[in-house]
Amino acid sequence: MTISFPLPAALVDTAVAAALAEDLGDAGDITTRATIPRDAQGKAIIQARKEGVVAGTEIAVAVFCFVDPSLQADVNLHDGAPVKPGDTIISLNGPSRTILSAERVALNFLGHLSGVATATHDLVNAVRGTDTKIVCTRKTLPGLRGFQKHAVRCGGGFNHRFGLYDAVMIKDNHIAACGGITGALKAAKATLGHTVKIEIEVDTLKQLAEALSEGADIIMLDNMDTDTLKKAVGIAKGKAVLEASGNITVENVRAIAETGVDVISSGWITHSAPNLDLGLEYLD
Amino acid sequence: MTISFPLPAALVDTAVAAALAEDLGDAGDITTRATIPRDAQGKAIIQARKEGVVAGTEIAVAVFCFVDPSLQADVNLHDGAPVKPGDTIISLNGPSRTILSAERVALNFLGHLSGVATATHDLVNAVRGTDTKIVCTRKTLPGLRGFQKHAVRCGGGFNHRFGLYDAVMIKDNHIAACGGITGALKAAKATLGHTVKIEIEVDTLKQLAEALSEGADIIMLDNMDTDTLKKAVGIAKGKAVLEASGNITVENVRAIAETGVDVISSGWITHSAPNLDLGLEYLD
Amino acid sequence: MTISFPLPAALVDTAVAAALAEDLGDAGDITTRATIPRDAQGKAIIQARKEGVVAGTEIAVAVFCFVDPSLQADVNLHDGAPVKPGDTIISLNGPSRTILSAERVALNFLGHLSGVATATHDLVNAVRGTDTKIVCTRKTLPGLRGFQKHAVRCGGGFNHRFGLYDAVMIKDNHIAACGGITGALKAAKATLGHTVKIEIEVDTLKQLAEALSEGADIIMLDNMDTDTLKKAVGIAKGKAVLEASGNITVENVRAIAETGVDVISSGWITHSAPNLDLGLEYLD
Amino acid sequence: MTISFPLPAALVDTAVAAALAEDLGDAGDITTRATIPRDAQGKAIIQARKEGVVAGTEIAVAVFCFVDPSLQADVNLHDGAPVKPGDTIISLNGPSRTILSAERVALNFLGHLSGVATATHDLVNAVRGTDTKIVCTRKTLPGLRGFQKHAVRCGGGFNHRFGLYDAVMIKDNHIAACGGITGALKAAKATLGHTVKIEIEVDTLKQLAEALSEGADIIMLDNMDTDTLKKAVGIAKGKAVLEASGNITVENVRAIAETGVDVISSGWITHSAPNLDLGLEYLD
Amino acid sequence: MTISFPLPAALVDTAVAAALAEDLGDAGDITTRATIPRDAQGKAIIQARKEGVVAGTEIAVAVFCFVDPSLQADVNLHDGAPVKPGDTIISLNGPSRTILSAERVALNFLGHLSGVATATHDLVNAVRGTDTKIVCTRKTLPGLRGFQKHAVRCGGGFNHRFGLYDAVMIKDNHIAACGGITGALKAAKATLGHTVKIEIEVDTLKQLAEALSEGADIIMLDNMDTDTLKKAVGIAKGKAVLEASGNITVENVRAIAETGVDVISSGWITHSAPNLDLGLEYLD
Amino acid sequence: MTISFPLPAALVDTAVAAALAEDLGDAGDITTRATIPRDAQGKAIIQARKEGVVAGTEIAVAVFCFVDPSLQADVNLHDGAPVKPGDTIISLNGPSRTILSAERVALNFLGHLSGVATATHDLVNAVRGTDTKIVCTRKTLPGLRGFQKHAVRCGGGFNHRFGLYDAVMIKDNHIAACGGITGALKAAKATLGHTVKIEIEVDTLKQLAEALSEGADIIMLDNMDTDTLKKAVGIAKGKAVLEASGNITVENVRAIAETGVDVISSGWITHSAPNLDLGLEYLD
Repeated sequence: MTISFPLPAALVDTAVAAALAEDLGDAGDITTRATIPRDAQGKAIIQARKEGVVAGTEIAVAVFCFVDPSLQADVNLHDGAPVKPGDTIISLNGPSRTILSAERVALNFLGHLSGVATATHDLVNAVRGTDTKIVCTRKTLPGLRGFQKHAVRCGGGFNHRFGLYDAVMIKDNHIAACGGITGALKAAKATLGHTVKIEIEVDTLKQLAEALSEGADIIMLDNMDTDTLKKAVGIAKGKAVLEASGNITVENVRAIAETGVDVISSGWITHSAPNLDLGLEYLD
Repeated sequence: MTISFPLPAALVDTAVAAALAEDLGDAGDITTRATIPRDAQGKAIIQARKEGVVAGTEIAVAVFCFVDPSLQADVNLHDGAPVKPGDTIISLNGPSRTILSAERVALNFLGHLSGVATATHDLVNAVRGTDTKIVCTRKTLPGLRGFQKHAVRCGGGFNHRFGLYDAVMIKDNHIAACGGITGALKAAKATLGHTVKIEIEVDTLKQLAEALSEGADIIMLDNMDTDTLKKAVGIAKGKAVLEASGNITVENVRAIAETGVDVISSGWITHSAPNLDLGLEYLD
Repeated sequence: MTISFPLPAALVDTAVAAALAEDLGDAGDITTRATIPRDAQGKAIIQARKEGVVAGTEIAVAVFCFVDPSLQADVNLHDGAPVKPGDTIISLNGPSRTILSAERVALNFLGHLSGVATATHDLVNAVRGTDTKIVCTRKTLPGLRGFQKHAVRCGGGFNHRFGLYDAVMIKDNHIAACGGITGALKAAKATLGHTVKIEIEVDTLKQLAEALSEGADIIMLDNMDTDTLKKAVGIAKGKAVLEASGNITVENVRAIAETGVDVISSGWITHSAPNLDLGLEYLD
Repeated sequence: MTISFPLPAALVDTAVAAALAEDLGDAGDITTRATIPRDAQGKAIIQARKEGVVAGTEIAVAVFCFVDPSLQADVNLHDGAPVKPGDTIISLNGPSRTILSAERVALNFLGHLSGVATATHDLVNAVRGTDTKIVCTRKTLPGLRGFQKHAVRCGGGFNHRFGLYDAVMIKDNHIAACGGITGALKAAKATLGHTVKIEIEVDTLKQLAEALSEGADIIMLDNMDTDTLKKAVGIAKGKAVLEASGNITVENVRAIAETGVDVISSGWITHSAPNLDLGLEYLD
Repeated sequence: MTISFPLPAALVDTAVAAALAEDLGDAGDITTRATIPRDAQGKAIIQARKEGVVAGTEIAVAVFCFVDPSLQADVNLHDGAPVKPGDTIISLNGPSRTILSAERVALNFLGHLSGVATATHDLVNAVRGTDTKIVCTRKTLPGLRGFQKHAVRCGGGFNHRFGLYDAVMIKDNHIAACGGITGALKAAKATLGHTVKIEIEVDTLKQLAEALSEGADIIMLDNMDTDTLKKAVGIAKGKAVLEASGNITVENVRAIAETGVDVISSGWITHSAPNLDLGLEYLD
Repeated sequence: MTISFPLPAALVDTAVAAALAEDLGDAGDITTRATIPRDAQGKAIIQARKEGVVAGTEIAVAVFCFVDPSLQADVNLHDGAPVKPGDTIISLNGPSRTILSAERVALNFLGHLSGVATATHDLVNAVRGTDTKIVCTRKTLPGLRGFQKHAVRCGGGFNHRFGLYDAVMIKDNHIAACGGITGALKAAKATLGHTVKIEIEVDTLKQLAEALSEGADIIMLDNMDTDTLKKAVGIAKGKAVLEASGNITVENVRAIAETGVDVISSGWITHSAPNLDLGLEYLD
C-alpha cells in the first residue's frame, strides 16, 4: 500500500531545509569535504534493521535531492509497507559527498516516522477484527505534527483533529465555564460553522446521556473502565461517535476495543514511539 | 540545579511561534472562543505524574507568554531538577483562554524534553561512581536538535558535536576514500582550522593503534564487546578520548563504563525517549 | 458586540510586519523623516465615512504599535459594531511620525476587513427572520483568508471550511472518478478521521436522494432555482445540512433563504467586497 | 499585449507557497486524496465568464507548477489581453490531483488581479482620447501590493509610487509641521537624493502657486471641482505634473480628464475592484 | 546631529536576529555559560579607538536588547556624530552574560557602519565649499544595503537609487537595444509612472546633447576627465542633474567637484570602506 | 585549485533570494523592462580588472540562475584561483534581461568575496615558507559570516571558530569571574563536551605558564611584541597551539610568523577587505 505525503514537495522542502541547516551549520560537512573527492560517485541502500512499518520515504528522498538534485533515489518499499530486518527501503546512486552529508537527516526523518507508523500498527494489529479505529491526538512533537499525522495513517491508524482549529473538543473547564454540558454544547453550536464537528469529554454515564440529548457529534469517554465503556456503548452506540481515551497500551487496547467503542485515541503513538532501527549501507 | 536554555528568548520564539501556529491554524481555538468568556481569569499548575528530570520550563513559559504576555508564569522546579509524581513544576495565573489555548503546545515541549532529560538521567545514574560521561549523538528529531541537546545536559549528560560542522568524525567511507586511517587523518588535518577536534571511528585494536599514532583527538570504539573495550583502554587511555558507541541500554551501560572508556554515546536518549507524563491542573 | 481576532497578537505580527515592509521598503517614510521633527507628538482619530460594520480594529492597532509600542491606541468601536459616518473607531495619541508612517497600512487592513464585514452584514440583514445562515467560501484573497474569515463573523456570517484540509467537499470530478455519488462517499469515509464532516455537491434531486441515503453530512445544492430548492428542502430537511450556492446577491438572497435551506454560501463577500470608506483625521 | 510580471518566478514562489499553505494546511486536500487515484491524468481550461482584461496568468501557472512541476500549463491569453465570456485563458494537462488541489488558489489570484486590471481598464477606456493617465495609489490590499500594481499596468494604467520609500508625497500634516508649503519643500530637498521626485498636495490655487514657485515635481490637486481643476491647469500645465485625486468614478473620470490634468489617481481600482468571474472546466 | 535609522525597531530585529543566530548557533555562548554566573551584573562602554563618524548605534543597541530587554543601553554619541579616540559611544549596564554574548555582533554592525560613514565623510569633507553632493551606488554588500545607505547619510552623503526598482538608469546595453539614446528615453517614458526619475549614462558630449534634448532628468558622465566634465557642465548645468562617476578617490574628488557637477557617486564608500576601530571596555 | 562552497545550492538560495529582493523590490528592474525586448538573448563575461584571488563563483552563478534557470553560466576560474586583469572568471549566455537584472547582485557577492580571498592571500603570501597559518576571526560582516569564512579558505587561510558555539574562547572577563585562569579553565572543562577545544587569551608569560599547566588546547597571545612571542614559543611550542593576535598587517605579519607561533588571526581580512575590482562585459 502506498500512502503519499499530503503536501507538495515544494512545501515539504521548508522542513527539509530547516533540518539540513540544523545539521550543516555555516561550515557544512567538514569531514566529508576534507576526505571525499568532489567527483566521487557511490551507491547505497537504506535498510530496515528491525521489523515495522515504513513512513517518511518521500521526505527522506526529498532530503537527499535537496542536497543534490542529480542524485538518483528510488523507493523500494513505499510508505505504509511492512518491513523486516534486511529489507531495502530506498536505493541511492550519485555523488558520494551528497550521500554522506544527507544520510543522518534523512535517517532521522525516516526512523522517527517509521517508528510512529510501527507503534500505530502495533495498536491497529491488536484490535484487528473489531470495528474500532485507532486514532492519534494533539500530543505530538513540536514542528512535526503534519509528519506524525501522516505516519499514523501509514500505520493503519486514523487522524483525530489536527489542531485547535478544525474540530471542537469541549473539556471540563469549558463545561464549567458554561454551567454544564448543555450550556457548553449550546454555546458551541451558536457560533460554529456547519462544517465543524463537536466532541465533548464525559466522565460519567449521566454526563453521557446529557451530551447525547444535546446532539454532540462525538463523545469522549475519558479513562472509563471496560465495564463502564460497555454500558456507554449500550446507551449511545449509533447516536454519537464514541471515543475511548486514557493510558492506552498494546496490552489493554483489545479489551477496550471489544467494548464496542468506535475509536480509541492514543498519545503514546506520537509522543513516545521509539525510533525504528534503520541503517544506510554503502555498496562498492 | 538550574540550567538555562542557551539562546535568548527572542530567538526561541521562532520555534514557539511555529508550534503554536501548527496548533492554532487560521481559525484559532474554536472551542475556547465559543465557551470561555473573554475576560475570565484562572489559575493552573503543571504537575509531574511520573518520576523524572525536568527540562523545557523556560520554553513552556515562553509558549504561554507568547500567547499573552500578561499571563504570570512561575517556574517552581527549574530545568535539571528531579521530580516526583505530584510535584508542581510551573504555576500559571491569568486569562483562562490563554491557559486553555496554550496548554497542549507547552506540555508537548515540556513532556518531550523532560522525557529526554529523564532518559539521559537513567543512563547517567547507571554509571554513577565511574568517570565515564554519557553523551548524545546527531540522532535527533528534525527541528528539535538544539532543544534536545539542552535536555541532555539537564539530565546530567554532555553533548557530542551539534552537527556536521563543529567537529570532524571520520567513518568507514571517509577512511576508504583516503586509502586508510593514516591518509584520512592527514587529509582532515590539512584543511581544518586549529579549533576543530578530530574523531575517528575504529572497529579493531589495530585500527586504534594507527589512529593513535596519527594523533586523533577522539577515537570511537564502535560496537566493541567489553573485553575489547578494556584492551582498548589499556592501550589508549590518556592518549586520546575514548568513546564507546552502539546499542547502549540502561542494562549494559555500567559494564561498558567500567571498562574505563571516557564517554559513552547514545542515540536512544534523543530519538526514542518516551514522554515524561505531565498534566495541567486547573485550580478552583 | 466584540469579536476578538482568533490568533495571538504575536502571530498576527508576521502579517503586520510584511504589510509594513511592503510600504516602508529599505528607505522608510522619506517624506515624514524630512519634514516632521523626531520628537513631535500628535493625536488623531480614525473615523467612518460611510455606514457599515467594523472589522480589523485589533489588527489596525497592531500596525501602529508595531511601528512604535509607546503609541497609545484606543478602540472606541470594536469588531462587529455597526458604524455611521462620523463615528470614531480608533483614537491615537503619540509620536507624529508613527501616526503618519503607519496610517495607510492600518487603514488598508481596517477598510478592507470592514468592507467584508459590511458586505456580509448586508446579506445577513436581508435574510433576517429566517433560520438560514450566511457563510463564506474559499474564494478569498491570497494571504488574507484568516483575516477575511474573521471579518465574515464580524458581519454576522458564519464560516464554511477554511481550506482543503478541514472538511471534505466532493464535487463533480471527485464523483466521476469514483463512478458515482455512492462510490465517492464510501471512498471518503474509508480514509477519513471521525472529526471530519463530508459535504457533497449535487445538481439534481435524484443525486440529492443518493447523497442522503449514503449519509452525507452536508449537501450543496448547486445553482438550483427556488422551486427546486423548495423540493430539496421537502426531501432532505433535518437529514443533512442543506447549502444553497451560486450567484447569491443582496437581491435574491431572501427568496433563497425562504426556501428553507440551512445555509447560503457567497464568494462575493470575500472576493469582491468594496472597501468601507474610512479616514484618519489629525486633531489640532 | 503581453506584460510580464516583474519579479523572477523564484521570488514570486514565496507568495505562491504562502497561498497554497493557507489552503492546504497540514492535512492537504483530503477530498481529492480520498477520491482521485494517484496516477489519474486530466485536462482542464480556465475560461472567462465575464468580459474584462486578464492579469495574473504567470502567477496562476506558478501555482499549478509549484504543486507539481510536471503539469503542463499553457497561457492562451496573456496578461493585458481583453477577454470575453467563453475565452480560454489557460490550458492545463497533467495529474488530476494537482489540477483539483491547485484550482482554487490559482483562480483566487487570477480572478482578483484580472478584476483589478478590468477596473483599471474601465477608467482608462473612459478617458481614451485625452492625454491623461490613470494611476493607482497606496490604497492596496495588505501583502498584494506588487501584484496589484502589476494588474493596474495590465489594465492600461500607470503606477504611482509603490510605497513611502520611493517618492516624496507632502500632505497637510507635513506642511503644517514645516510652517507652510515653502518650508516643507525646502526641508524635503535638503535631505533627499537626486533620484527622488517630490509631490505635494494642495487644496487651493494659492497653494498651487506656492508649490510651483518652490519647484515641486508633481502637484496633487485634492478634491477640486472641474472648474478649479481647469484653472489649475491653466496656471501650472507643463511646469509640474498635475494629479487629480478624490472620489474618482467611471462616471466622472472623463470630465476630470478633460480639464487637462496629467494624471488621475484612483484607490478604487485596487481596494474595491470586484473579482473577474472565471471558471475552471474539466475536459474529458 | 542625530540621524535615526529609517525603519521601526521591530523590522530591524529580523536582521539583528539573523546576525545573532549566526554567532550563537544552537549551542549559544558556551564560554560565557561555563564561566559567568547567571545573575552577574556588569557595566561596559563602547569606545572609539580611531577618529571617524558614528553610524549604527540604534542597531547596536537593538542587538544587546534583543538578547535581554532588561539591559540598559544609553547612546552617548548618536548616528552622524564625529568621534575621536577614547570617546564613549554607548554605555551598557546589565547582565554580564548579555554584554559578553552580544558584544561581537553589536560591534560588527557598529564598526562596519561607522566605517561606511567615515569613508563617506572623508569624501564629503574633501568637497566642502563646493555645491557637489557625494552619493552612494548599488555596489553594496548583500543583505546590508539599507544599513549602508543609512550610514552614507550619517557621513554627510546622499543616497542614489536604492535598487533597480525606484529610478531608471539607462546604460549602454539598454541604449543599444533601443537603437540609440533617443529611442531608449522614449521607451522608458512610455511605460513609467510620473513619480520615477530617468537617468542615462553618456560617454561623450554628443550623447550628452542628445540626452538633454530628450529630457533626461539625470545624466551620468561616465569616467570623463575633468576637462570634459567642465565642458559638460557648461552645456547642461541646470537643464539636468549631472552626475560624475568612476574611480572616485579622496585624492581626486575635489578636482571633480570643482568642475561643477551636481553629484559624484562612489562605490568605494560601501563596498570597500574599512571598519572603524571600536572596542568594548568593561568597567568594574 | 577548486574550493566548493560548503552548503547545498538550495540553502544558499535563501541568501541569494534576499539579495535579489533587496535590489528588485516590488517593481523589479524598471529600466530593463522598458528597454530590452523580452526575448532578446545575449552573451557576457565577468572579468577581473585587478590582480587577486577568486571567491564566490558558485554564488554568483546561483544569482543568475535564480533569476532564470535557463541561463547558461560557465565558471572559467574557480574559487581559489589567482586572477590577473583581463582574466575571464565566468561566461554567461542567455536572456539579456536576466543578465542585466542580475549583474549587480552577482558582482556584489563576487567582488566582496574575492576581496576577502585576496586580502587573506596577501597575508598568506607574506608568511610563505614558515609553518604559521593565517586564520580569520568572528569580526565579520553581519549575515555574511559563512560566505566570508569560505573566502578566507579560498585565499589560503584557515578558519578560526565560526561563532560562540563551536569552541571556547576564555577572555579577561571570563577569567576574572572565575578568580583566575585556573578557575576559568576548570569551569569550562566541567560542562563541556569532549568535542570542544578550549582557547584562552593571555597577556603575560606568567599567565601562559598557568594556562599550559591547566591543559588549555589553544593559547592566544594577545598583542605581544615579537620578543615576548619568541619567549612564549620557547616555553609552550608543542604543548598547546599558540595564536598571535592584534593589529596584524601585511607589513608586520612575517616578523610575527617568524617567532614560531602556530597561527596568526586577523580581523582585517573580513571586516575591512577592499572589494576586488571586477566587471561584466557584454559581447555582441
